[in-house]
Amino acid sequence: MKIKTGILGCTGAVGQKFITLLQNNPLFEITELAASNKSSGKKFSDAVNWTESNPIPEKLKNKIIKNCKPNLDCKLVFSGLDSAVAGDIEDEFANAGYIVISNSKNHRMDNDVPLLIPEINITHLSLLKSQITRRKSGGFIVTNPNCSTVVLCLSLLPFIKNNEIEKVIVTTMQAISGAGYPGVPSLDILGNIIPFIKDEEEKIQSEPLKIFGKIKNNKIEFAKIKISALCNRVPVKDGHTLSVSIKLKNKTTVDKLINQIHKFKSNNKYTSPKKLLYYFDNPGRPQPSLDVNLGNGMSVSVGNIRNCNVLDFKFTALGHNTIRGAAGLAILNAEYLIGKGFFNK
Amino acid sequence: MKIKTGILGCTGAVGQKFITLLQNNPLFEITELAASNKSSGKKFSDAVNWTESNPIPEKLKNKIIKNCKPNLDCKLVFSGLDSAVAGDIEDEFANAGYIVISNSKNHRMDNDVPLLIPEINITHLSLLKSQITRRKSGGFIVTNPNCSTVVLCLSLLPFIKNNEIEKVIVTTMQAISGAGYPGVPSLDILGNIIPFIKDEEEKIQSEPLKIFGKIKNNKIEFAKIKISALCNRVPVKDGHTLSVSIKLKNKTTVDKLINQIHKFKSNNKYTSPKKLLYYFDNPGRPQPSLDVNLGNGMSVSVGNIRNCNVLDFKFTALGHNTIRGAAGLAILNAEYLIGKGFFNK
Amino acid sequence: MKIKTGILGCTGAVGQKFITLLQNNPLFEITELAASNKSSGKKFSDAVNWTESNPIPEKLKNKIIKNCKPNLDCKLVFSGLDSAVAGDIEDEFANAGYIVISNSKNHRMDNDVPLLIPEINITHLSLLKSQITRRKSGGFIVTNPNCSTVVLCLSLLPFIKNNEIEKVIVTTMQAISGAGYPGVPSLDILGNIIPFIKDEEEKIQSEPLKIFGKIKNNKIEFAKIKISALCNRVPVKDGHTLSVSIKLKNKTTVDKLINQIHKFKSNNKYTSPKKLLYYFDNPGRPQPSLDVNLGNGMSVSVGNIRNCNVLDFKFTALGHNTIRGAAGLAILNAEYLIGKGFFNK
Amino acid sequence: MKIKTGILGCTGAVGQKFITLLQNNPLFEITELAASNKSSGKKFSDAVNWTESNPIPEKLKNKIIKNCKPNLDCKLVFSGLDSAVAGDIEDEFANAGYIVISNSKNHRMDNDVPLLIPEINITHLSLLKSQITRRKSGGFIVTNPNCSTVVLCLSLLPFIKNNEIEKVIVTTMQAISGAGYPGVPSLDILGNIIPFIKDEEEKIQSEPLKIFGKIKNNKIEFAKIKISALCNRVPVKDGHTLSVSIKLKNKTTVDKLINQIHKFKSNNKYTSPKKLLYYFDNPGRPQPSLDVNLGNGMSVSVGNIRNCNVLDFKFTALGHNTIRGAAGLAILNAEYLIGKGFFNK
Repeated sequence: MKIKTGILGCTGAVGQKFITLLQNNPLFEITELAASNKSSGKKFSDAVNWTESNPIPEKLKNKIIKNCKPNLDCKLVFSGLDSAVAGDIEDEFANAGYIVISNSKNHRMDNDVPLLIPEINITHLSLLKSQITRRKSGGFIVTNPNCSTVVLCLSLLPFIKNNEIEKVIVTTMQAISGAGYPGVPSLDILGNIIPFIKDEEEKIQSEPLKIFGKIKNNKIEFAKIKISALCNRVPVKDGHTLSVSIKLKNKTTVDKLINQIHKFKSNNKYTSPKKLLYYFDNPGRPQPSLDVNLGNGMSVSVGNIRNCNVLDFKFTALGHNTIRGAAGLAILNAEYLIGKGFFNK
Repeated sequence: MKIKTGILGCTGAVGQKFITLLQNNPLFEITELAASNKSSGKKFSDAVNWTESNPIPEKLKNKIIKNCKPNLDCKLVFSGLDSAVAGDIEDEFANAGYIVISNSKNHRMDNDVPLLIPEINITHLSLLKSQITRRKSGGFIVTNPNCSTVVLCLSLLPFIKNNEIEKVIVTTMQAISGAGYPGVPSLDILGNIIPFIKDEEEKIQSEPLKIFGKIKNNKIEFAKIKISALCNRVPVKDGHTLSVSIKLKNKTTVDKLINQIHKFKSNNKYTSPKKLLYYFDNPGRPQPSLDVNLGNGMSVSVGNIRNCNVLDFKFTALGHNTIRGAAGLAILNAEYLIGKGFFNK
Repeated sequence: MKIKTGILGCTGAVGQKFITLLQNNPLFEITELAASNKSSGKKFSDAVNWTESNPIPEKLKNKIIKNCKPNLDCKLVFSGLDSAVAGDIEDEFANAGYIVISNSKNHRMDNDVPLLIPEINITHLSLLKSQITRRKSGGFIVTNPNCSTVVLCLSLLPFIKNNEIEKVIVTTMQAISGAGYPGVPSLDILGNIIPFIKDEEEKIQSEPLKIFGKIKNNKIEFAKIKISALCNRVPVKDGHTLSVSIKLKNKTTVDKLINQIHKFKSNNKYTSPKKLLYYFDNPGRPQPSLDVNLGNGMSVSVGNIRNCNVLDFKFTALGHNTIRGAAGLAILNAEYLIGKGFFNK
Repeated sequence: MKIKTGILGCTGAVGQKFITLLQNNPLFEITELAASNKSSGKKFSDAVNWTESNPIPEKLKNKIIKNCKPNLDCKLVFSGLDSAVAGDIEDEFANAGYIVISNSKNHRMDNDVPLLIPEINITHLSLLKSQITRRKSGGFIVTNPNCSTVVLCLSLLPFIKNNEIEKVIVTTMQAISGAGYPGVPSLDILGNIIPFIKDEEEKIQSEPLKIFGKIKNNKIEFAKIKISALCNRVPVKDGHTLSVSIKLKNKTTVDKLINQIHKFKSNNKYTSPKKLLYYFDNPGRPQPSLDVNLGNGMSVSVGNIRNCNVLDFKFTALGHNTIRGAAGLAILNAEYLIGKGFFNK
């Protein structure tokens, strides 16, 4: 008995990734496809400009796309909606009793909405009690962070426990798939670097403070980390590469940090990879073209931890932006919700 | 009466760039081509794998390449030699009375060798007195810095005077032409990022301290700046892009810093561009594919100065790595030497 | 006394290229900018997403964009309009007395409209007599061919005279700039080949028959060449590369064909390059990144002429698609019209 | 009981691909690694510059590389040797009783050496009788064709039976992985097309004549097809794309040809994909970035069959050059040899 699942924004890049990743998922079954008026009423294969390398799943080809109205035959919706419309639509679905797992930015910083990377802050699900109370329908919203935020936070995770992190400067080199489709024009990025991504630095500077925050009195007390992000778009298809410098509260060494990664055990489950974090001894790794698909795109890689003249340490981090950083994480979040019993109620 | 000029390492990438840039130079005339035993004795057009888009200058096509021995018919040599051999050969030429302008790293940090960006530290030429005395032949070596160092130092130049710089964290995104030819295999870099360039971070962290140093008692007192570099190779042909964060001694504002660039006047001459520094109001600039050739590749561009949560300010910088960062700067250095009378003696 | 000139479709990729190329043109002065309702009424710098590497000419920055209505203060208009609207608008301007030089496909195959590559078929201007008569206003339209057609026809030009061409099979590898802006999404083309360009093969198969046609009784008798085109989009910024096989009526040899190119003299003038055609002895040339800008982008290059097992000969051809294949050719056409006295009337 | 297998040229690009593809193969077990003197005697992980995205198989990391001398402990060797040395070494192994499956060009056209694509010409194994007799040791050589040849021949396979093929003109757009490692310098190919690959056209023009040949009197009677190839290197990592025009002996239609592909059944087995040939209705497919991995890289894709003005029909074909076009095909050949009993003797 799979859980009936709808995809909001099914024709977009994130929507297509949801459909691709859910194809053989044992827990969820796509029963509804929804999109804007431009596409609703059409057969999916007619409305979509399919850009995944796997073909459209056979049983969805002729499915008629519905409007993004809360009358879909499903319990759960994954939202890959554009942020221009996601805010209101996701509220409507949650208020109508749906469980909404959203990749959009709109509700990420809401007080009672978890901004979830389950291997880090599964305890934040306790926020849902007040959200469910507020909405009165049994429905609620859970969000996942910005793609670069996800990679950054997971790369910092092994260091958090023993060495509180005080400061982070992170330069991102972000793949074009992060901009959706059609996204970045090829004339702008072929053989080029674009040293700016609208609103991206603000997200990376603020979201981790919530993610690493602690629950106190049913609210999140934000972590006190100073983060500065410098964002660049690069001619790479998939995989955000991060050059990270960090300042820690407690003294440690490069060897100890490497060891913390090696012995790091995530209590990961479901589609989460067996090995959440990889460390490379070769200083030239990780690289997107070689390492982005580790753990089926759900692992994060770290390499070349070394001393930093200005802060304490610096390293390279890499993660798959549309899988671990978006659709794959959203699905993982839904799987954890099952594990925590949220679909039993 | 042009100055007779030899090119050491004439078949390499830097050597070819010297030849291309000197083609119509009014001050220098290439009278000698020299390279390793592999090429010496051959006609230039037979020995070289010419990769510049302009054709080989007609008068050099049939020129016989000589050995890198100090019996060349010229007063000046530009060295684009590989660092594996550059150290000794350049010493031999200087000791034999030649003026050696080198792009190699070997002698950059020698006490009495200027590491020259003439718009910044032309006063360092006073080091030459002791070098000339030591060598006894009238010859000497002048070096130019690493390509990323050059772009970084010029981007910092307008801020130096009024706001002493205390700390710099710079992430580089470096073009493939910086690795020479054949250089980076296409399988390694197409659609990819390589987060490591051997020995590069060390150069960027140390060379600016000499460049911004002050002459005291005929020696350079190094500047006290803490610099941390994180170097990446990117699939861009020409142009190193830098994401820079800085901490300044004196308080200032983004607007004041932008103003410092706008009103910056370099006392530039010769092949130095009329406008040494560009500032872009568009936060998405500079970009290598649009801006790398400003000032015929001799200008440096800055954009998107903004506040930094960790240090004080952050911005993007861009410069042409093989022109301003290598051969073009070396030629400019030679032109300044003429202006300072070093060719009259 | 420059000729007053308007640009129709001034914000598009071709429009921007017109503006860039005309900046220092001694014959034409841009006095009007026009575009669709979306842009008209705005200052040019506010309406345009400028993608040329040279900045917007200072005197056009604040110019107000007008509608594409034939009330512009100029004698000549260059049209870079989208083909969805170009047909009617260009007719309106021509019927109102303007000289219209169009890069759009709409009128290319009209009976009394020259499809002009002036080095090939300047005689086709005799068609204008009947077009001017028909329009009654003194105005008329002259078009330039599709970008790949231009490169193909110029590469065939030296062979036409002595060896009538019977058959041509041409595989194109076309640059992304040929699709305008935003044009090809980077996700579609980075590290990829798209083996299809809508309507492109039909143009390449038909337009050369008109271009190489002969005037008989004031009409063009189309050339009898069988052409088959196979079109591909490749991740190259500028420059269409063609792999061409040809069957000739008269027997000849590779050496003779090469010689025909070397001794080819075009009676070129104006912005046409001094050397219209280059031949490379190196079989690996021409290449877009090395050779696309020969003759300021107005030359065409040919290389590796060799025997073909199926037809007679095969070779590589290359030309700059947005200069020689579009805006640059349109300007050249206008210059020839001056030379032929069409602006005196 | 897996067959003991050695890899000749184990550190090269093809050697690494053999190792990667054989990792989980149920029939073969790598017991020996061999390479040139430069690498022999070293541990594999020390000698190899590993460029596959999967890590080096654990059990091979510390294996000592041997010389390419016929004293290896195995029955079968896969040869990924450079053609400069492959000819003699492969002969030595075959003469010493080894079964040699070679990806090198040296013996492809030898009279009694099968040039094998088993789905096409498995009957050519009858040549082995005389080869085995000649060598007297029980050993023999089987080769696979050039990577582009493989893709071309498989794309033509459905048409062969009912419509003898008379003429083929094929323009290739070949991936950089076809040139091995380090292979094509990034400066040569980034954003560029190289319209020449040494000796490639000759192979594509001759090898299919042997592959499609018929056995008569224990010799191959070559097929009488005129093939002309025009080869280009493109900035694509994996996957050769072909623009093909063909002339057939018998009349047919586009629809019939498409139907021949759809109903084509290969009697494929082993690692051969379930579906050998894909046909796309979308004229913009196949594309390397979307379709190269179909059938785990062992399928070939065809699209956009249409009429040709010069020959009869034209279409696009695509295949994975290092899997179906090299190492994967060599392994498939070995699997067929097992099936035919060649390992029982």
